[in-house]
Amino acid sequence: MTGTAVIAEPPQSAAIRRWVATVLDDFLRCKTRAAMDLRMPAEVAWTLRDFLAAGGKRLRPLLCVIGWQAAGGHGTPAFVVKAAASLEMFHAFALIHDDVMDNSDSRRGAPTVHRRLARHQDVSRNAPSAERLGTSSAILIGDLALAWSDELLHNAGLTSSQLAAVLPLLHVMRTEVMYGQYLDVTAAGRPTCDVDRAWQIVRYKTAKYTIERPLHIGAALAGAPPAMHETLSAYALPLGEAFQLRDDILGVFGDPSTTGKPCLDDLRDGKNTVLIALALQRATPGQRSTLQTLLGNPELDGAGADRIRQVLISSGARDELERMINGRRAQAVRALDAAPYPLAATAALRQLAHTATARTS
Amino acid sequence: MTGTAVIAEPPQSAAIRRWVATVLDDFLRCKTRAAMDLRMPAEVAWTLRDFLAAGGKRLRPLLCVIGWQAAGGHGTPAFVVKAAASLEMFHAFALIHDDVMDNSDSRRGAPTVHRRLARHQDVSRNAPSAERLGTSSAILIGDLALAWSDELLHNAGLTSSQLAAVLPLLHVMRTEVMYGQYLDVTAAGRPTCDVDRAWQIVRYKTAKYTIERPLHIGAALAGAPPAMHETLSAYALPLGEAFQLRDDILGVFGDPSTTGKPCLDDLRDGKNTVLIALALQRATPGQRSTLQTLLGNPELDGAGADRIRQVLISSGARDELERMINGRRAQAVRALDAAPYPLAATAALRQLAHTATARTS
Repeated sequence: MTGTAVIAEPPQSAAIRRWVATVLDDFLRCKTRAAMDLRMPAEVAWTLRDFLAAGGKRLRPLLCVIGWQAAGGHGTPAFVVKAAASLEMFHAFALIHDDVMDNSDSRRGAPTVHRRLARHQDVSRNAPSAERLGTSSAILIGDLALAWSDELLHNAGLTSSQLAAVLPLLHVMRTEVMYGQYLDVTAAGRPTCDVDRAWQIVRYKTAKYTIERPLHIGAALAGAPPAMHETLSAYALPLGEAFQLRDDILGVFGDPSTTGKPCLDDLRDGKNTVLIALALQRATPGQRSTLQTLLGNPELDGAGADRIRQVLISSGARDELERMINGRRAQAVRALDAAPYPLAATAALRQLAHTATARTS
Repeated sequence: MTGTAVIAEPPQSAAIRRWVATVLDDFLRCKTRAAMDLRMPAEVAWTLRDFLAAGGKRLRPLLCVIGWQAAGGHGTPAFVVKAAASLEMFHAFALIHDDVMDNSDSRRGAPTVHRRLARHQDVSRNAPSAERLGTSSAILIGDLALAWSDELLHNAGLTSSQLAAVLPLLHVMRTEVMYGQYLDVTAAGRPTCDVDRAWQIVRYKTAKYTIERPLHIGAALAGAPPAMHETLSAYALPLGEAFQLRDDILGVFGDPSTTGKPCLDDLRDGKNTVLIALALQRATPGQRSTLQTLLGNPELDGAGADRIRQVLISSGARDELERMINGRRAQAVRALDAAPYPLAATAALRQLAHTATARTS
């Protein structure tokens, strides 16, 4: 995608991902058994388990563990992994609800939760009724994922002082990402050249939520002082922005077989991304009219999408985004130079700066 | 509605309701200011504030405070009221999402949150786009209410041992009500004579959530032993069932100007209530066919609803429900006879058994 060589990630990352997956799977097996004991529908916990098992980069749990280590925490204790896994459960909530709001068909290469649940309805229901039921069930499964992320955290075995350090950060994180999503949803359908607004969405919906807060939460578990949170932010925010810009490019130019997401959704929704705002700023009057006509059209087809892509390339917006990604990644890596983290944590963060921005999925 | 004389409630209840309202209002004013400081949309916290200020019986916070007093807690300390208010914030989440799932037009005599937000959209959006945006915004505002209910609880000033006693109950309560709602939503549209299934929905969606768990949570704050939780359940579960049966009757026979909810929604949704299941059991073949044709029809009109009401009356289902309400209320009140609560708490619970089942809204 970007010409950056693929850099192998340290073995620790793979081990943490597997451990997080096991924690989530064990938790949801318990929930499935508990539901069956109460004569409650087992498909609720199953669906969530399938969704979580289907993949995902597990970026937030990974960053939580690295944050713990950066702040001087030793090794990878179970309570840190469990707290990290609770962030992944929260993320499942966020994705399931986002997909309902965006009316998306697929995620991680499979039907979204609401589509899947709509298909599972009794065939005697008519299509609108099954669709409505799929949406309602997905809203509820998302709600449960949010509630269960709390359970995972509170049963992680944290001390009261660790809990007291983590909860305010968790509360801020939740509010930030929900506001970010609110801005994203309410701005969709009418793209503008307001780059500031697009950046605000990037910061709240992604940079803080995906990179900064997981690092802060991990560091708080290790008792990090406020100054270390600032040092972590100096790395996290530019990297989080670069991560989202890569996502914006993949959302339009990515290969759906690799990203697991359709490449027309962002365009049909008329998402207010930095990529689109920049293109609208730089476009000739003719190009601008093309974008304004086609973006946010729910019937947009492949040919229309190609015309949009052409404008994004010829206006220079795509190249500008690549420059922004490189600049921000460099800024994030520079922030590590003076940081007081143990060597292994610094190496993991440097590594992650590359994998998070050079990815193809 | 029921012929039961109106019994004045003790002055304590009104004072607790006012205090809870103030806690919620203060919290959401802070959230509004914080949003404005971050250049975030202020309408999110405003909308929630309006929704919470529009009324509601505040039954759950009231029961939480009474649970505290029943277990020997003295007076009405601020931390108990704040914990109680967090239950009302959670309830706002539940109602906002329920209304999205049920596609309801009004609640508490005003447009539901998703309808209100759809109307507030820029007039240049077409109707389906505004409606979708209203729904997405309401899902997010509900999500925030759930997240903020946690913040309210964690900032209530509880000790670590109080928090440790309350959190497992809170987690169970959330899972129970979400499962109850899941059952309710997935069973809607095809009423059956399966009374057991209807009772399961009543227990999880209402009896435990509305009466039992708030009492348990209040009692846990006062350090109540497990035996006292059982004593409270002996009162709470029959009362909670009676409360929901009253709701089912009001949902069909209530005066919308008093209930604040349209009286066609439950019938159009084809909700699987005990009232409907009993009527289907007792109906003549002709009556059954009337119910099966009309229930769950989204186009049901006033004349159709009158025909359904006629069957509910002539089949004897409505009278049977009134008998069930009286029987369960009596059972709840009897459970107070041997209970070891202070006199004032017992009096408040006896009082509440009447107001919760003889209400008209």
